[in-house]
Formats: sequence, structure tokens, C-alpha cells
Amino acid sequence: MSAAEVRIIGITGLPELHAGDDLPAMIVAAARAQETTIEDGDALIVTQKVVSKAEGRIVELASVTPSPWAEQYARDFEKDARQVEVVLRETKQIVRMGHGVMICETHHGFICANAGVDASNVERTGTVCLLPVDPDASARAIRERLRASLGLDVAVIISDTFGRPWREGHMNFAIGIAGIAPIINYAGQLDPAGYELRVTQIAVVDELAAAAELVQGKLDRVPVAIVRGVSFDRTDSSLSELLRAAERDMFR
Amino acid sequence: MSAAEVRIIGITGLPELHAGDDLPAMIVAAARAQETTIEDGDALIVTQKVVSKAEGRIVELASVTPSPWAEQYARDFEKDARQVEVVLRETKQIVRMGHGVMICETHHGFICANAGVDASNVERTGTVCLLPVDPDASARAIRERLRASLGLDVAVIISDTFGRPWREGHMNFAIGIAGIAPIINYAGQLDPAGYELRVTQIAVVDELAAAAELVQGKLDRVPVAIVRGVSFDRTDSSLSELLRAAERDMFR
Repeated sequence: MSAAEVRIIGITGLPELHAGDDLPAMIVAAARAQETTIEDGDALIVTQKVVSKAEGRIVELASVTPSPWAEQYARDFEKDARQVEVVLRETKQIVRMGHGVMICETHHGFICANAGVDASNVERTGTVCLLPVDPDASARAIRERLRASLGLDVAVIISDTFGRPWREGHMNFAIGIAGIAPIINYAGQLDPAGYELRVTQIAVVDELAAAAELVQGKLDRVPVAIVRGVSFDRTDSSLSELLRAAERDMFR
Repeated sequence: MSAAEVRIIGITGLPELHAGDDLPAMIVAAARAQETTIEDGDALIVTQKVVSKAEGRIVELASVTPSPWAEQYARDFEKDARQVEVVLRETKQIVRMGHGVMICETHHGFICANAGVDASNVERTGTVCLLPVDPDASARAIRERLRASLGLDVAVIISDTFGRPWREGHMNFAIGIAGIAPIINYAGQLDPAGYELRVTQIAVVDELAAAAELVQGKLDRVPVAIVRGVSFDRTDSSLSELLRAAERDMFR
């Protein structure tokens, strides 16, 4: 019997990205340079940082005037008031504050520390990187360019690294998707004993993002990974389908 | 340049498991039958359900006498009172109750629905499956047997499928580990611009568990997966290192 097998292949060698760069073309060139072929049905996981850079989502802190509350919070917790101000602007609501940490709901509906604003892996100190304005649109743009240039149907997932409640350590999560349904639904399927399955919905895009991190590491030298061999529903969907409505959520 | 690559290989063909079965021997036999070689440095991800069955963690509901409170809760939410009773016995504290759902902290410290008690994928109706008493010990036993019989040093992760706050869909998480440190620590490492990394701790065992689910699916026909090509710290550790202390947790 042949074994079910999934492969995760890292794509390295992308140059440092800047606003306006043609990220899909750079991904194709980097894959070609390392003799990796992108195939129909692959899932391409792209880290948020390179997408944000190509989309110009970099803010010069020198250009930011903090509000009085950002000034006060920064004083109390020894933060940069301008960076606090940027975090607040990216925030729809603060879900928890404590220990000098702000867990924010972003305007997209993601719940994460500091609304995803990040000062690491940016080219120059004094700048911070924001999440893409519309990560689904970012994913769609990459997917459509790959279809146009290579004639391939690939799923694209934009990923970012978030903390979680209850457990230490961070993990990769999907923040934008194109060409893939976020959930595999087993509802109504029976197990071998004829019992309906308890766990009926698997967040496959988060599992793909997590798997990709295994080859990406954290120094952003492997900003893209191909996951090959996973069968998923190619329906065009939005990551928002994965976000639980506040009234159904017991943890905010 | 050669690409970083990780492979995930499913192991199928294990028979239905019963208390006292020699699970490690069955894994080795199933791998051999499908001509999959287990290699030194592999991570072996084993679903909780087969471990629990081999350890006899199956409860006949007919043998359970529900407490008055279990009876009342079951009446209010149309549950089986005996199953509610089993959930309560597996629970250290209830973290949230609502919508007929109980989010429990188990005696191990895992936070999940119904304390991990599950009525699907059991051989006979009228029975439920509990989490292993000590999943780290379960993982260590498999690891030691593989070392003894094959002479190999493999990491073993026992996985289960949990829901998460804020996002729909379930994912695989690690609940027991052996031969692998749960976290990869990037603290103090500098990014290419010389800025210290923001995200310094990656929960690699949860990422491995999530990746394994991509070949396992939910019908328990692929209860074991090999993940090959990930470099991890082989320190012997406990999953408890990954559990955040209540006083540091903002979400319970």
C-alpha cells in the first residue's frame, strides 16, 4: 500500500522587499533559481512580512504623533509612544491589557498582541511593519499572477505568527487566503463504528500555515513555502469565514 | 541551492486497538507493511485515540452513576448524564460554560471542550474514550520501545484535536511528548537588520501535530504520521513546559 505523503518545500533567496516590488514574480524567480517547480494544486504559504513590505505597509516612527493616552501608556510600561500610537490605530478594540501586553482585535478581526505591528525583520530601525490592509486581497493577487504567468491553480495563504491563550510559544496562523476553503467539514460523516464524528470541522488553512513554519524558521530567510499533497476544497473563500463571531465566542 | 524540505508520511493499516495491545510493535509492523522506513531523527505523531485504546481508557457508560448535578445539567442541555459525569471526573476546573458547551481544564492542565472525553471513533456505542492518564509517559513508552527494537532515536508526540478561542474549526495540538523540547527559542537572535526578534519562541510540537493532521484526516484510518526533516532540540522534556501558568494567562 502506498503511503499518504505531504511535502513542504521552502523557497529561499528572495531579495529584501520594498514597496511596489513584484512579489509574485520574485517568488517564481526564486523557485526557479533553486530548481523547485510550483505545481497545480499546491498550497503556497507566504509570510505576512514580505507581503507587507511589498505593499508598503512600513511606518516611519518619526512621522507619528502619539496621542496623550499613548504617551501615558508608553511611560507606564516603558514603550515607544509612537509605536503604541501605531498599534492603537491598527486596533478595533483591545481585548485584554495586562503585564504591559495589549491583546488587540485588529480592524480585520484578528486577535493578537499589538495588532500585528512588528519592529523586527524590518530593514531600518525606527520603522515598524503593519499587517496588510486586506490579506485576502493580497493572497488573491498572488494567486491570480501565478495563474496568469504559469497557468497554474494554486491556493495562496498569507501567514503570521501569533501567540495563543493557555499555551506558551507562538505558531503560524492564516491571515489571508485565496483559492481554498478555510475549513474541511466532516459533519455528518460516520466513523468506522457508525458514530457521527465529534470533531467535524478542521481549520486546514491554519494547519497549512503551521506546517509551513517548519521549513520557514523565524529569520525570514524562507518567506515562502509550498505544501504539496494536501487535498482541499478549491472554493474561493475569505479568511473571515474562520473568525468566530463575538457573540459565539466565550473568550473575549 | 537545494531547498529546505520536510516530508509528512502517514502510516495506515493499524488494526482496531484494544487494552493491552502492543502499540509500538503495531506501528513498526504497519510501517513495514507499507514499505515506509522509520529513520533516526524522525518525529512520530500518534493520535490520542489509538494510545487511549491501547491503554484501556474506555469507559462503559452503563457502569457510571451520574451525580445529581450531572443529571440536572444533562436534562437542561439534552446530554447523556453518564457522559457528563465522566467529563466532570476528568475535569480539574471548568473554565467556561455556555451554549451547552463545557470548556474544561483537565487534570493534566489542557483546556478543551468536555475534558477531551469523546464518543466518536470508539468501537462500540455506549462507551466513551478518555485522554491517556499521562500522555508524556505514553510518548516515552513508544519512544523507548522504538529505540529498543529499531535502535533509532525518534521524537514522539501524542496529538489531539481541540477547538480554539476566536477562530472556528479545530486543529491538532500536542498533548504528550518525548525526546523533543516543546519550544524552539530564538531569544536574543538578531534578524538581518540586527533587530532582536519579536517572536522568540515557536511551539514546534504543536506545529508538528498540526502538520501531521494534514495526512491523518479525521476518520482515524491514519493514526500515525512521520514528520521528517525538521531539526529540533532532542532534550527530554514534558508537555507541561508548554502550558502557561494560570497567573500569567489573560484568558481564563
